[in-house]
Amino acid sequence: MRIAIDAMGGDHAPRAHVESALSAAAEWPDTHLILVGNPEVLQPLLGNGAPSNISIEAALEVIGSEDEPVKAVRRKTDSSMVVAGRMVKEGKADAMISAGNTGALMATGLLVVGRLSGIERPGLAAIFPTLDNKGILALDMGANMDAKPEHLVQYALMGSLYRSKVHGIDKPRVGLLNVGTEAAKGNELTKAAFGMLEEAPINFIGNIESRDVLAGNCDVIICDGFSGNIMLKAVEGAASTIFQLLREELTSTLTSKIAAAMLRPSFRRVRDRMDYNEYNGAPLLGVNGLVVKGHGSSDAKAMKTAIRQTRTAIGNGLIAALADEFSGK
Amino acid sequence: MRIAIDAMGGDHAPRAHVESALSAAAEWPDTHLILVGNPEVLQPLLGNGAPSNISIEAALEVIGSEDEPVKAVRRKTDSSMVVAGRMVKEGKADAMISAGNTGALMATGLLVVGRLSGIERPGLAAIFPTLDNKGILALDMGANMDAKPEHLVQYALMGSLYRSKVHGIDKPRVGLLNVGTEAAKGNELTKAAFGMLEEAPINFIGNIESRDVLAGNCDVIICDGFSGNIMLKAVEGAASTIFQLLREELTSTLTSKIAAAMLRPSFRRVRDRMDYNEYNGAPLLGVNGLVVKGHGSSDAKAMKTAIRQTRTAIGNGLIAALADEFSGK
Repeated sequence: MRIAIDAMGGDHAPRAHVESALSAAAEWPDTHLILVGNPEVLQPLLGNGAPSNISIEAALEVIGSEDEPVKAVRRKTDSSMVVAGRMVKEGKADAMISAGNTGALMATGLLVVGRLSGIERPGLAAIFPTLDNKGILALDMGANMDAKPEHLVQYALMGSLYRSKVHGIDKPRVGLLNVGTEAAKGNELTKAAFGMLEEAPINFIGNIESRDVLAGNCDVIICDGFSGNIMLKAVEGAASTIFQLLREELTSTLTSKIAAAMLRPSFRRVRDRMDYNEYNGAPLLGVNGLVVKGHGSSDAKAMKTAIRQTRTAIGNGLIAALADEFSGK
Repeated sequence: MRIAIDAMGGDHAPRAHVESALSAAAEWPDTHLILVGNPEVLQPLLGNGAPSNISIEAALEVIGSEDEPVKAVRRKTDSSMVVAGRMVKEGKADAMISAGNTGALMATGLLVVGRLSGIERPGLAAIFPTLDNKGILALDMGANMDAKPEHLVQYALMGSLYRSKVHGIDKPRVGLLNVGTEAAKGNELTKAAFGMLEEAPINFIGNIESRDVLAGNCDVIICDGFSGNIMLKAVEGAASTIFQLLREELTSTLTSKIAAAMLRPSFRRVRDRMDYNEYNGAPLLGVNGLVVKGHGSSDAKAMKTAIRQTRTAIGNGLIAALADEFSGK
């Protein structure tokens, strides 16, 4: 299988991407990793002894985090992100991974790779850490700001298929993000979607409140892109605020510094369990090829996690299964 | 000033409410506290030596957390919550505080106290803890699920007035909750509201992402009731998950138990700074009287905080100022 990596996107590009490709190439000889970017930058990082299952695909432009997504994708046709997308579109790669500009990646998915037939609106998924360490697949996290009830139903179907194909979960439990657990709760969108989800061929378990998402009560949670994005960033913000407060408090006296030093491994474990990088690799579901988003701050370890997930998705025929599910619908 | 307290609502009712009333009555002799509830329950808790600025108003029914809000308010006309609302409506109290069923309190505001003239939809506010300890007033947290742009503008005006009248903030900075900071970001609602907020007579500072809310970048943040509720509960859920993970990790070995014991005061301070009870007392803005929501888990200290805020709001003529702002609009 062939995976194109946008080697120039993300906070730690290109070094982390080259490192993760080297590590992945050694571990999975059946996988060909294509680093897309400027060869003059990538070749020196790769060195001379690069394994035969890594190659470089030249792309001389870069889409930055401040670029306006749609405009950048339309104009920067020789950017690492767009070239990687084109390789997927043209069948030169089975998947692409990027830790770059999220909006631009969604635009690449829509405009370069193209929508999957039968899908009205692709959805961006994210994996939230949960107390039971199984994580929860949440979508849409911001691809589609004004979702209709039928979009939520498609997210539910795609999310279920992803969890069963990539994570091996049998009959994934699907929840609807809402402000209360009762069926009649919510806004016009969730009220209309509730009944449609009950009829859909999924394991729908009802409404889930955002305070219970991290408890791991379901395997897939669906929502419109606006509230999903609000939830995602609220969890990130709360975690970073709490860790900052802990840092302040635990370094305020000599006693607390000593005790905090003794607890360093424990704190690290908590931070790791809340760390999105541990679950890196969120798919843009609903495009006609595998497009995977890595966290912007992905390091080499996180990128390798994304590669692992992508391999599983390719190996289990995710896109063919999705195409099959939605063809004729 | 006279404050009616729903003495039967909330997890720690009625004991915490009686305790907080006794403490408030001693501290503020100019304030008359009216405990609304079953006299047979309240009188023994109050004892014989109750001060003259505490009285009991009989109400024999109770609205529980599982009651359907509108139905409960319509049918349980002798409940502590509805009776307290009626006292505000009839001018027998200047404000009411309840830590009971949130939906029922909103219904009490709308159906018993009534809307403020000129306000289309009341909004439920909450105070989020922030790193700078000033807190942020966020509304709507769930009174109005399908808000229109003009509702958001009214929230901005009401929130600004509240922050300046109750918290003494000059020209409160108002942010719009959104998925990105650029003006063009968001869903149809926020895009339409953005331009109207720029025109409104407030200190509008633009879009704020949910990850930055706790950093204290603004004084008021406005949103529709659905996404506000998602954000509020996401922050609560993340905080409780992190503290639970810390508890697990810090009690896993003898060393970590000892070190954690040394750090107990630090942890308590962090928990207190993230604690909503420290900022207890969220107003339902837009009803024709002062209706204040206490957190369901309010203890006596938290209830006293709510009483303090309510006193300030009454003393500074909040409702008259709001009525003035919206009359003829």
